[in-house]
Order: sequence, then structure tokens, then C-alpha cells
Amino acid sequence: MSRAVFDGDEYERRIARTRERMAEADLDAIVVSDPANMNYLTGYDGWSFYVHQGVVITRDRDGPVWIGRDMDANGARATTSLADEDILAYSDDHVHSPRDLHPMDFFAGVLADLGVDDGRIGLEMDAYYFTAKSYTRLRETLPEAELEDATLLVNWVRATKTERELEYMRQAARISENAMRAGLDAVAEGVPEYEVAEAVYAALVDGTGEYGGDYPAIVPLMPSGDHTGTPHLTWTDRRFEDGDPVILELAGCRHRYHSPLARTAFVGDPPAAVEETAEIVVEGMEAALDAVEPGVTCEAVERAWRDTVAKYGIEKGDRIGYSVGLGYPPDWGEHTASLRPGDETVLEEDMTFHTIPGLWFEDFGVELSETFRVTSNGAEPLADFPRRLFSV
Amino acid sequence: MSRAVFDGDEYERRIARTRERMAEADLDAIVVSDPANMNYLTGYDGWSFYVHQGVVITRDRDGPVWIGRDMDANGARATTSLADEDILAYSDDHVHSPRDLHPMDFFAGVLADLGVDDGRIGLEMDAYYFTAKSYTRLRETLPEAELEDATLLVNWVRATKTERELEYMRQAARISENAMRAGLDAVAEGVPEYEVAEAVYAALVDGTGEYGGDYPAIVPLMPSGDHTGTPHLTWTDRRFEDGDPVILELAGCRHRYHSPLARTAFVGDPPAAVEETAEIVVEGMEAALDAVEPGVTCEAVERAWRDTVAKYGIEKGDRIGYSVGLGYPPDWGEHTASLRPGDETVLEEDMTFHTIPGLWFEDFGVELSETFRVTSNGAEPLADFPRRLFSV
Repeated sequence: MSRAVFDGDEYERRIARTRERMAEADLDAIVVSDPANMNYLTGYDGWSFYVHQGVVITRDRDGPVWIGRDMDANGARATTSLADEDILAYSDDHVHSPRDLHPMDFFAGVLADLGVDDGRIGLEMDAYYFTAKSYTRLRETLPEAELEDATLLVNWVRATKTERELEYMRQAARISENAMRAGLDAVAEGVPEYEVAEAVYAALVDGTGEYGGDYPAIVPLMPSGDHTGTPHLTWTDRRFEDGDPVILELAGCRHRYHSPLARTAFVGDPPAAVEETAEIVVEGMEAALDAVEPGVTCEAVERAWRDTVAKYGIEKGDRIGYSVGLGYPPDWGEHTASLRPGDETVLEEDMTFHTIPGLWFEDFGVELSETFRVTSNGAEPLADFPRRLFSV
Repeated sequence: MSRAVFDGDEYERRIARTRERMAEADLDAIVVSDPANMNYLTGYDGWSFYVHQGVVITRDRDGPVWIGRDMDANGARATTSLADEDILAYSDDHVHSPRDLHPMDFFAGVLADLGVDDGRIGLEMDAYYFTAKSYTRLRETLPEAELEDATLLVNWVRATKTERELEYMRQAARISENAMRAGLDAVAEGVPEYEVAEAVYAALVDGTGEYGGDYPAIVPLMPSGDHTGTPHLTWTDRRFEDGDPVILELAGCRHRYHSPLARTAFVGDPPAAVEETAEIVVEGMEAALDAVEPGVTCEAVERAWRDTVAKYGIEKGDRIGYSVGLGYPPDWGEHTASLRPGDETVLEEDMTFHTIPGLWFEDFGVELSETFRVTSNGAEPLADFPRRLFSV
């Protein structure tokens, strides 16, 4: 009943590339906790990251081992092509246990069985679902092991995308276009924010007619009015008012691959200052996209944006984008390369970024984003959506 | 522009009760990382838990201190009533930084300013967003501090609900009823799973007409067919088939308070075995609810379920529920009391639980859930939805 979304070869190549990085870091094993990395290496896809779980890869062994809660083992059988003996589950009394029983005790047993309990083991020390307790518990139960920080080791393997991954991101972009249209159509004076959220969500999940959409790793965001300066507040019962700027940020998602998109709307006729700001943001975005090509650094792309807005007397020096792709809540970013001053990562063909520059003033903000692929000679925006301020 | 959803007294009482538990644990300070606990103590509500953030409470100081990313400080101003000087933000170059710069360095500075850097500091060691790296970094930067595990300290304060909290949970229950109806209406032979997800999501966000719904901490789950044994897989493009059992699990959410609800549907005419199983599950659920009253233990509630299904020759001994309320992705459970063998937590009035017993066999499963409040003399289910198998 497997429903893996890539063929076996693709997973094998990903594991081989992970092993190369493990060799460079002299690691005997890596415990992968980030659900996006678990999915990347095995195909595992379930809303089970609220309990401890992981994928272990060793230098010597053929395939990875999945570790999770007993009730999720069937989910691993359904979404991966791992052999039954490579799906190892701990009993339910490990979950939120009042007794002194922790899932990492089970992990330690598996690592011992794999013969790496006295080896160098990489841990995703700063990944979302690898808690402090997971670390201290492993340290206690594996006194002979050298525990090393391997945060982002797999994330960096994810940076360049294959043709199939890009296909899913393009499908996600189709969904993003539909959802953005639905959201912009819904915004109007007197309409509560939650109705716009509903319209966006329905379009995100309903997909294109040919295929549905997955849940995005971040909910649709729509800061409005004086809240355009609070980018991460979510919708409320508040009704949009004439004169509100509204920033819509959303991402279609297909097989967990995202293609985020943001646009700014204005309820009523935008004042000249808002229109002019939008034009500057569009010009800056286009300068950034024009700067993209293999061999260029991430910071050079940000500089193109910054130099453009500087012509209008605006000083900026923030991050304007990040590597994007496979993701689970709470984030669709890959946490590797950023488009910002100081990031000297060199762009390679088939890397994908979400670039989201914006300008904020006292009483309004304008934001605009594109998800793009680095091609052999430029940037390919994945979505096709007008780059302008929308008056609604 | 504050939009706090409880009055100031309620937050003061929560903080006072937290301080009592800190005193019992002899803690000088606690660093709260769980977004639900941050919200509980201050009202802070934003999708910003993908970066490091926290609330610090000390034994001596009046109010809490919020720590987060600079671009989220406005969100703290908008959703809490904290004074400006108690909202402390680190600069954006701490985020996913390639340089050796971590948000916990900023936390350490705040803890020093608060005069507790040589004190006993409680950390939520097993909370989702307090990573292993956060811990090791704090340990390095605060060599004089005693770092103690304070996981669940605040969660236990959350166990009994106030009248206002219950009001939000009842509002969430109204949303759950609407969403369950929408979901059951959408399931039909030939309909893709994502269309049902769309119907459920739209109802969850659209609310009741009087108020909208928040995003739930877990996406709608709808395992169907032979996937009813894989409870945490999410929807796909698969179309429902005649003969599919479909489990719908969802939660309305209002001001981050959840009221989860699950029902099982059957596409077409259910076979006698499925009907009979559903009747046993309903009988067991009702026995569990009948067992609820203040002074009874959690394990006694589970036992009432287990004894009931045992009459039909079915042996079970799993967790059938858990404390529920305020939550953020990835979970609406509070991780404190569980309805399961060995949990001797004594029920108190105004505790709230999600009880979700189920029976799974080779080729189908039946699940049914209720969210209930412990009243002075029994259980008050928050939603009013028929307890039966739905044939669709």
C-alpha cells in the first residue's frame, strides 16, 4: 500500500549524498529528526511529529531505519518502501509518560543494535522536534558515543532540486496562483479576515481540478491595517476597512513541496505614497531576480534589491529570501542559504528560493514575493502572477 | 492596538499559580518555550514559533518578559499587555545564522539582566520548540546557573479551566459540529480525499456566522479504507470507494482553544461487523463518560471503557484520552493527564479531556471521540453530535 512519490533511485541518490557529507564530517551515523529530512530520505509523510521520531542512517548499512511510535509504524509502511524490519516502533507508554520512560531510550537501543553506540553520531541539535531532553537522554544512555552537531547536514543536500521535485514545486505554484486569486477576490471592506482565510484555505486544499493541495507548513498570513508591521499574526474576526493595506502570504503545497507567494492589496483607492512604494518594491524585486545566475552569491542578489531601493533614499539591509522546498509545520524554509548581506553561498542551477522583500513605514507596508528556480542563465519564477499592488 | 482575549486579572492569576509551582520546585526563574504556555501566561499569539522565542518569569519580578525576533516584537505589542520594556527582541542576523550567533546568547543576556544567571533556572526540556542546541548554548553561556527540567510545570497549571476558557472551548465545539457535518456531507464514493479536507477546513475557519475559527493545531485527519490503521496520514488525491470506512478527526479552534471531535463514516452500506463494532465503541465511550466525576482517577475512566469492550471479548489497554485546551501545531493535547492504565491523576472540576477510544481490526477501524468538561457530578460533552456510525 506504499504511495511513495519518488522512485526508489531518487531516495538512493539522496542517501548516497547524505553519506558523502557524513564521511566529510567523519560521522558513523546520523539521527534525522526534522520531518522534512525524514521525508526526503525515506518518503515518510505523516502528522506524527508531535511525538519523538527519527530516521537513522549509518555509514555501513544499506538503507535507513525509521523509528517512531507504534501507532505510526503502519504509516511508515504506507508511505515508504522500507522493509518491515527497518521500521522500528516504541510502545505507546513512552508517549507523554508520567513514568521515567522516554522514546530516546528506545533510540539508544536501536543505535546499539546498529553497532554505532560507541561511534560518532550526528544529531540535528537545532531542528524543531529534537528537544533538549532528547539530547540529554541520549547522552546519558550512550556514554561511549561522541554526539556531534549535524544540524542542516541533510538540509544542504536538499538545496538543489531534481526534475521531479521541480515538477511538484511547479504544481504547488499553480495552487498558489489559484489561492492568491481567491484571497484577493475575497478581500473587501466589511469582510472579516477569517472569510479571506477560508477562501485561501479552500483554494490551497482544492488544488487545480487535476490534483489537490497538501496543508502548507505555514498557515495563510494576512496582516492588515496597522498590523502590516506584525507579519506573523494570524487572522481574527476583524473586518477590513477602507484604507487598509493587506498583505497576503501563502503557499500552495504538493507532496510537501511549497511554492510561496505574497502580494499586497489595498482596500479602496491607494494613496500615492502606497502606489509609489509598491512600484519601488516591484522594481527592487525585478533587480534581485535579474541578478540571479549560477556562480553569483546570495548576498549579491540581496545587494541588487538594496541598491535599487537606495536610489529612492530607502536604506535596507535585511534578509530578503531563503532556500525553500520540502517542509512541515512550522516552516517551509530550508534554513540553509539566505539572500542577505554576509551570505556567500554561491547559487547553483536548480536551487530554489523564496524571495520576499518588503518596505514598511509607520502606517503601512508593502510586500511582494516570488519563488524562483536558478536556471543556467537566470531566475525562473515558478508562479505567474501580476507583480503589482491590487486595489480591491 | 492590543487584542488580548482575557482580562489582565486572569493573566495575573495564571502567573501567580505558576510562581507557586516555581516555589515548590525551588526555581528562581523559568524560561517558557512552548507557544501554548507563552500564550497562556501573556496572551502572545503569532505564527513565530519557527524561530526561537520565550517568556521568562522570575520569582521576584512583577510581570513576565517576552523574548523573540525583532520582527515579532510588534506582534507581542499587539497581542499582550506587556510594557514596552518587557518586550525584548534579538536582531534578525540571529535567525538561521551561518555565523556563530544563536538566539540563546540573547536569552542569556536577558537572564543575566534579570539577575538569575547564577540561580536555578527551569527549562522546558521536552517542549517542541526548545531544541537541544538551545539547551547546550544556554549551558555554555550561563556557567553559574543551575539548569533544571521544568517541562510541564506550566502545562499542569493549565489543566483546570476558567469560565472564560470554557466559553472559548464551547465556541470551538460549535465550530467542530459544523465542520463534522460539512465533512460527513462531503464524503462520497468517487470524491477525492482533498475535497473532504477542503470542506472541513472551510467550515473550521468560517466558524459559526457569529465568529470565525482559528487554525487548528492539527490538520483534519481522515484515514480511510485500509488506512484507518494509519491514524496520522493526511489526505491525498485518492477517491473514496464503496466499502471504505472513513475516520474524520478534527477540532474547531477559538482563540487557540480546541474542542476535538471524531466520528467514523462508511461509504455505502456498512457490513454487520462494522455496525456492531461501532455500537461497542459507542457503549464503551458512554461507560467512560459515565465514570467521570471529581475525585475519580484517569485510569478509572479508561477502565470503564476497557471493561465494557471486554464483555465482547475485546482486549484493550491503550490510552483513550488526554487533557486538552490551548494549543499550537503540532498538538492540541496538553501532555499532562492521560486516560490510561497507570495514570493516577485525580479528576477535578473544570478539567477538560479529549477522549478518543477506537477499535481497529485487520481491514477496518472505528473511532469516536468527545471533548468533555469534568463537572461537579459528571462529564459535560462540549459538542452535541450524534454518537453513531454514519453511512454516506
